[in-house]
Amino acid sequence: MSKRLAAEFIGTFWLVLGGCGSAVLAANFGGDGNPLGIGLVGVSLAFGLTVLTGAYALGHISGGHFNPAVSIGLWAGGRFEAAQLLPYLLAQVLGGALAGLVLYLIASGQPGFTLPADTAGAFASNGYGALSPGGYSMTAALISEITLTAMFLIVIMGATDDRAPAGFAPLAIGLALTLIHLISIPVTNTSVNPARSTAVALFAGSGALSQLWLFWLAPIIGGVIGGSLYRRLGQPDR
Amino acid sequence: MSKRLAAEFIGTFWLVLGGCGSAVLAANFGGDGNPLGIGLVGVSLAFGLTVLTGAYALGHISGGHFNPAVSIGLWAGGRFEAAQLLPYLLAQVLGGALAGLVLYLIASGQPGFTLPADTAGAFASNGYGALSPGGYSMTAALISEITLTAMFLIVIMGATDDRAPAGFAPLAIGLALTLIHLISIPVTNTSVNPARSTAVALFAGSGALSQLWLFWLAPIIGGVIGGSLYRRLGQPDR
Amino acid sequence: MSKRLAAEFIGTFWLVLGGCGSAVLAANFGGDGNPLGIGLVGVSLAFGLTVLTGAYALGHISGGHFNPAVSIGLWAGGRFEAAQLLPYLLAQVLGGALAGLVLYLIASGQPGFTLPADTAGAFASNGYGALSPGGYSMTAALISEITLTAMFLIVIMGATDDRAPAGFAPLAIGLALTLIHLISIPVTNTSVNPARSTAVALFAGSGALSQLWLFWLAPIIGGVIGGSLYRRLGQPDR
Amino acid sequence: MSKRLAAEFIGTFWLVLGGCGSAVLAANFGGDGNPLGIGLVGVSLAFGLTVLTGAYALGHISGGHFNPAVSIGLWAGGRFEAAQLLPYLLAQVLGGALAGLVLYLIASGQPGFTLPADTAGAFASNGYGALSPGGYSMTAALISEITLTAMFLIVIMGATDDRAPAGFAPLAIGLALTLIHLISIPVTNTSVNPARSTAVALFAGSGALSQLWLFWLAPIIGGVIGGSLYRRLGQPDR
Repeated sequence: MSKRLAAEFIGTFWLVLGGCGSAVLAANFGGDGNPLGIGLVGVSLAFGLTVLTGAYALGHISGGHFNPAVSIGLWAGGRFEAAQLLPYLLAQVLGGALAGLVLYLIASGQPGFTLPADTAGAFASNGYGALSPGGYSMTAALISEITLTAMFLIVIMGATDDRAPAGFAPLAIGLALTLIHLISIPVTNTSVNPARSTAVALFAGSGALSQLWLFWLAPIIGGVIGGSLYRRLGQPDR
Repeated sequence: MSKRLAAEFIGTFWLVLGGCGSAVLAANFGGDGNPLGIGLVGVSLAFGLTVLTGAYALGHISGGHFNPAVSIGLWAGGRFEAAQLLPYLLAQVLGGALAGLVLYLIASGQPGFTLPADTAGAFASNGYGALSPGGYSMTAALISEITLTAMFLIVIMGATDDRAPAGFAPLAIGLALTLIHLISIPVTNTSVNPARSTAVALFAGSGALSQLWLFWLAPIIGGVIGGSLYRRLGQPDR
Repeated sequence: MSKRLAAEFIGTFWLVLGGCGSAVLAANFGGDGNPLGIGLVGVSLAFGLTVLTGAYALGHISGGHFNPAVSIGLWAGGRFEAAQLLPYLLAQVLGGALAGLVLYLIASGQPGFTLPADTAGAFASNGYGALSPGGYSMTAALISEITLTAMFLIVIMGATDDRAPAGFAPLAIGLALTLIHLISIPVTNTSVNPARSTAVALFAGSGALSQLWLFWLAPIIGGVIGGSLYRRLGQPDR
Repeated sequence: MSKRLAAEFIGTFWLVLGGCGSAVLAANFGGDGNPLGIGLVGVSLAFGLTVLTGAYALGHISGGHFNPAVSIGLWAGGRFEAAQLLPYLLAQVLGGALAGLVLYLIASGQPGFTLPADTAGAFASNGYGALSPGGYSMTAALISEITLTAMFLIVIMGATDDRAPAGFAPLAIGLALTLIHLISIPVTNTSVNPARSTAVALFAGSGALSQLWLFWLAPIIGGVIGGSLYRRLGQPDR
């Protein structure tokens, strides 16, 4: 495995372990209604910090995508070569899946742990309708995931533009992911990342797997829209 | 539409979608008294991160105002040309309004959703008196909005001063907006941005619309004060 | 008034308005036990962000002290001229006091507002013993304020050292103030800043005024210790 | 004592005082179920900010390890000389222990304070099984501490790589520690730092001391894995 793919593997491992791990282990700490738990603010912060820290640590090796929708969006934006798409996506999905396994091993070390049932957000899975944390419809889920992934790509493309301040891109991109979670955890438990959705769906039961298509389709559509939009926006006026 | 106006349109879209979106969808997640919801800290963080990420992504294109009071304040501060004011304001209001619509489409995808009534903070609207989240008077609202917008402009002018550390302005400006929300959501639900107030007032009923004048007037007065003040402050002692 | 003193005046105004303002207006929003309020995390963040944003905006004008203990600590550390101490302290105290007044005007715009009584933390005042939020003794208050102000000065001196990364000092210093509040609000409501303590004691009743001596004495002792310590630490080994 | 060791002493003092101090003094402020307390989000933020601020202030003197597992991991990664390991570790343990003492002095200034009993997380101590905040098994604790320390070292090695953006390493490393706490406080109360575990175990009773071996063993194993892994990852493909 090349260094670049290893970096994508590790970075996506970190994203899933940190983001989904904080949700599974710490969001509800102490039980329902206990304010000690990190809640949606803590989970949002955790997701963003996986990307912020991963991109500062590994971005110079692989570009720091950690997300199939980002790789595809960057390709649509003219910033990433098509030939690298498949290996990158594979590394991302495998890294995420390993994190799902490690998280499962840790979580199952708590007495009374049971394999998560088909409930909304179980094992940090994404969902819509009955599996949306707030019961939001499939249409709402599609609009939310497409729009937010598009904006995510605009931030990624813009913050890594040659004209943007150098060095701040991982900060802006990581905190954009925090922002996206602050908005949309109630709607879909927030994906904008098919590798993240896949990683936990493998452990979250048949419901999450049956809805996984949306969390590939919508982020990829959004990524292509955002990448293409910034590509045009980023060109100076003539 | 020029690239600059497109960037202002997208940036204000992001500000309203992220800031007001987090308030509408996630602040009260799980119902009253549930600590899982992001609360006022999460909403404050979200508003700030829209500007932080938007300015790193789009600042090199349009300057990253995303706010009529900022454009006018920068004009008062000698940093923005008068001829650009009207097109900038139009792009900001339209971008914000589109975000209001998208947010409405997502929010209405939740079972039991009802068009927000004339209650304080409904659909993230701004208000005073009966429509202030904490019931604060119109005078308190005016003092709060004018003072905080003035300080916002001082931070914007100062952090983008040639003598300030290069590259950090979006960080400082975004986090200033977070700070402003940490202070004043209880007073007016925090505007300091007429485009943001307008965007959600369109969906929040007649009460919010009838109070909208204050959220144009006060931020603009504050912006002019802050811009003018820093203009003098920023000149070296002779 | 010189530009430097004006910047110190405005910066301390911002520190008190933002830090104490968030505490008075938003910490307990919705009433006791309501998780919507920003709580101690939000107040800690607010205090830090006033310094972070103020230092990026005004640091190039005045150095961005906004705190008598910082000015005195920097003098002890060999970084600030003695002749400037008195005017700086005066500007800081006046700027803070104006913020106390503005905050009072806003807070009193809420129906049912009463002049704060002699209770712990009233109007964001600092205190020990009966006026400590957690009932901590005067000794605990002294240890806490001295130690934390000393560490604050070490961070300030170190982050502005020529050998530290350029431009990051306001970030590090602001977040150090956030950290200090995360630790010690329960002990003294956190001062480490005599101007901040004075600004709200003027409105918080006789109890806060009678304990104000500690919040001048301890931060100044701590500042001198921290400044002197780093002065020696910062010199390369021979 | 050399300047380098003094910086490690002070930095680890700060880490323990800030991280463990926020946990002991402020996490549960107001009593069980009171949302004013800083909870796990606040403690996570505090730990990260000790490193962020300490590394900006002292990193140019000592490298800013503040953690035996970091020193050993950097040695495994080829970035730190073996001869410095023992003095660094000693300075870290002593600095942490002094912070434990200062924290004890402050905490005992609250009426009704009792020497912490052998309960999970007492005096911010780390533990597994009966002494894990969430009751997690020894195996879960080992997996969690090893994996997270390994990822911590990868972030440290990567963010300080010559190819990474200059100056951002303290930000990335500090926020990585915040992230690690957001994930794993429920599992072990989060160590990834033997000096931090030792510092509070000295005051937390025999239970914490009897489990201290794990919080030396696991972080060191993780540190060596992470350092070695990045060492290979960081070399360009041939």
